[in-house]
Amino acid sequence: MDFERIKPRLDALVKSGKKAELRGALNMLNEVDIADYLETLDNEQVLMVFRLLPKDVSADVFSYMDNDQRTRVMEALGDAEAMRIIDDMFIDDAVDFLEELPAGVVKRMLSNADPKRRDLINQFLHYPENSAGRIMTIEYMEFHTGTTVGQAMMEIRRTAPDKETINTLYIIDDRRELLGTVALRKLLLAPDDRRVEDLMNNQIISVHTTDDQELVADTVRKYDLLSIPVVDHENRLVGIVTVDDIVDVIEEENTEDFEKMAAMLPSDDEYLKTGVFKLARNRLPWLLILMVSATFTGMIITNFENVLTNAAEIGVALVACIPMLMDTGGNCGSQASTLAIRGLALGEIELKDIGRILWKEFRVALICGSVLAVANFFRVWFLTPYDQNVAFVVSLAMFFTVIIAKAIGCTLPLLAKAIHLDPALMASPIITTLVDAASLTILFTVATNFFHIALG
Amino acid sequence: MDFERIKPRLDALVKSGKKAELRGALNMLNEVDIADYLETLDNEQVLMVFRLLPKDVSADVFSYMDNDQRTRVMEALGDAEAMRIIDDMFIDDAVDFLEELPAGVVKRMLSNADPKRRDLINQFLHYPENSAGRIMTIEYMEFHTGTTVGQAMMEIRRTAPDKETINTLYIIDDRRELLGTVALRKLLLAPDDRRVEDLMNNQIISVHTTDDQELVADTVRKYDLLSIPVVDHENRLVGIVTVDDIVDVIEEENTEDFEKMAAMLPSDDEYLKTGVFKLARNRLPWLLILMVSATFTGMIITNFENVLTNAAEIGVALVACIPMLMDTGGNCGSQASTLAIRGLALGEIELKDIGRILWKEFRVALICGSVLAVANFFRVWFLTPYDQNVAFVVSLAMFFTVIIAKAIGCTLPLLAKAIHLDPALMASPIITTLVDAASLTILFTVATNFFHIALG
Repeated sequence: MDFERIKPRLDALVKSGKKAELRGALNMLNEVDIADYLETLDNEQVLMVFRLLPKDVSADVFSYMDNDQRTRVMEALGDAEAMRIIDDMFIDDAVDFLEELPAGVVKRMLSNADPKRRDLINQFLHYPENSAGRIMTIEYMEFHTGTTVGQAMMEIRRTAPDKETINTLYIIDDRRELLGTVALRKLLLAPDDRRVEDLMNNQIISVHTTDDQELVADTVRKYDLLSIPVVDHENRLVGIVTVDDIVDVIEEENTEDFEKMAAMLPSDDEYLKTGVFKLARNRLPWLLILMVSATFTGMIITNFENVLTNAAEIGVALVACIPMLMDTGGNCGSQASTLAIRGLALGEIELKDIGRILWKEFRVALICGSVLAVANFFRVWFLTPYDQNVAFVVSLAMFFTVIIAKAIGCTLPLLAKAIHLDPALMASPIITTLVDAASLTILFTVATNFFHIALG
Repeated sequence: MDFERIKPRLDALVKSGKKAELRGALNMLNEVDIADYLETLDNEQVLMVFRLLPKDVSADVFSYMDNDQRTRVMEALGDAEAMRIIDDMFIDDAVDFLEELPAGVVKRMLSNADPKRRDLINQFLHYPENSAGRIMTIEYMEFHTGTTVGQAMMEIRRTAPDKETINTLYIIDDRRELLGTVALRKLLLAPDDRRVEDLMNNQIISVHTTDDQELVADTVRKYDLLSIPVVDHENRLVGIVTVDDIVDVIEEENTEDFEKMAAMLPSDDEYLKTGVFKLARNRLPWLLILMVSATFTGMIITNFENVLTNAAEIGVALVACIPMLMDTGGNCGSQASTLAIRGLALGEIELKDIGRILWKEFRVALICGSVLAVANFFRVWFLTPYDQNVAFVVSLAMFFTVIIAKAIGCTLPLLAKAIHLDPALMASPIITTLVDAASLTILFTVATNFFHIALG
């Protein structure tokens, strides 16, 4: 990209402090690239570059920085100058920044703001975390019924530069209730004296201020929207959410699912910017829970102690196969659970499909289990020192393990959904723990029966 | 939503065949909801409803159907009528449908199309799978330099209804080379006699026809774009990709990562619509590979056979702890690998960060390892029949296992990236297999040294 080529020149200009030339060079850069570039500079340089930017550009650049950077710039600028930048940001970006700051700092910052804007920001900050109200913005175009196309176009020309989007215009009644939308292209084609409500699409697709951002994202994705109106409990239009923020929400929600599925507490922070203690704190709870629950697997082995001690040769052979059996079971289980979790997240499967899913997984398990069992029989026979009897016992145990693992794997996420837990929590680690217990029980049961080893 | 309320009425109208009323009811529905509704009907009903839709609506509804549905409708309609619908679709939607059909069917369908459009679709179908060329569309507004604002506005008014987006206008020179973009809102504010190139933003952010859709998505996400221009190898503008398709690409790529990380071959198909044999085929390769590589873990246990047979009591105790130790190691490893894979996918970490990441994971492992070791010591002591000596040995092995697991977990995805493999392939299953071997070696080494058990 252009940016990599320009960077050395920027560095030289920053070092030499040639402000006029630097301003010219910055002018050729996209706001996102400027924000990236500022990350590479020290505090003093950041301030110098930041102050060279035109006012509207600096607010944009600020909204593309990450929170550490923003706090750094904010502190260096001082409250008054900082607030002027926040005033120039779109409301959603301002809220996104302020919600990460300590309450005291927010209060101090907002004391410098215009009272009307302060009230608005405070109101937005009071919506639940990750709700539509938190990510919406107010920079949209709305028109009351009765407005003519000519009047609307004049208003758009007057205020367009301050709006986040003008593609969709929102039509409201006297009570601010949302009646419908008009696409800008429809307005462009209509005669000046037409009324906006005559052009209106009244199939309203909207969300509520308290709806979770995941629902907002799902709706935007389903209907291919560029923005979605947000209404309050009385159906009054209070904001919109734009698709660029939805793209971020989607990646955020996916990251959360990845983290939960790997037995971590979800976190919004970038990996390299998260402290070691915080990372450890996010990882330990599930590690501890899963470790303690593994006591159960140990108990199963202790129970079958006699298989190991009375039949030493066979015992070692069985023990040697435990890791393979457990891992294969775990893998089979997490394959099924991943598809179930993903299907639920994308709305492709629902709770009521549980019967169909179990039946499908059962047939898949029959195929996978048979193939694996046969392959395992030859693996044990040819690649290990053990005989066909051991190979047969382990393969039979494998077959049943696969079937149980697939059943557990696909059922658990659906059960979680049924009791309103996040399906992603029921992923591989929990399934592995359950499948371990199942596979060991199966192995020892098959072995004791086949080799007629007495228990206890 | 509205749709759920209307559905019973639609069902009644479809059953009674009241076409006029049905048409009225359909008119109130969004195209996405109509497509959903058609899925619930049988072949004959689908055809009846589909033919009631206005021509432009039917093309939209068709593009929102999934492929099974589309093939069903297509076969029922016959080639000529089907091609008329494809002609009314945006190019990207048409390509999205046709690329899934057998080559012979595509050829037969296109023989009914307008020759110019046929050539264009054929050209798009020749771009590599999952490339920008495959998902781009040509329904955008382009203007040559020298065009005035007045002329451009006239052209927009004339052709807007057939365009996928009019928010961004693309400015090209005589050779069709892309020079820059103009936002529609800028055009609305400019006097009629201004030339479009004077309003132009020349910070061009574009992709090439052969770029992977993942790169397209990353760029759109990074720069918060609503659409991105696609140029050929001579920098000539040939299409655009719109953000609604990017949202789908992002979910597709995430699903692929989830599937790879759960040891499956990635698939584009919806779970419930995929056949049992195909599901099994996607799952078996990795299950087989991982099962065979587990032979190695078995060998380690066989090697330490004497620990199990010579020291029967301690042997059983150690065996009882194997599942717990392996699972904890596997969980620690997949926590680290998940964060690395996700960081790479979102561009938050790069290859050159490997030193920082290893150092960070080492410190996290020290904390997690210590806490887990201490917790495990008391777990073994209080919750199992074994004594403090066993507890100590297992806890020490646990500590080293956690450190090795975190190191393997964070390194493998980065190594994969370095040799241009997909980092997501190096996820939990492979890491688990490696960590298993490591944890068993550690356990038996610590045990033989502590208990002075002779080997061999």
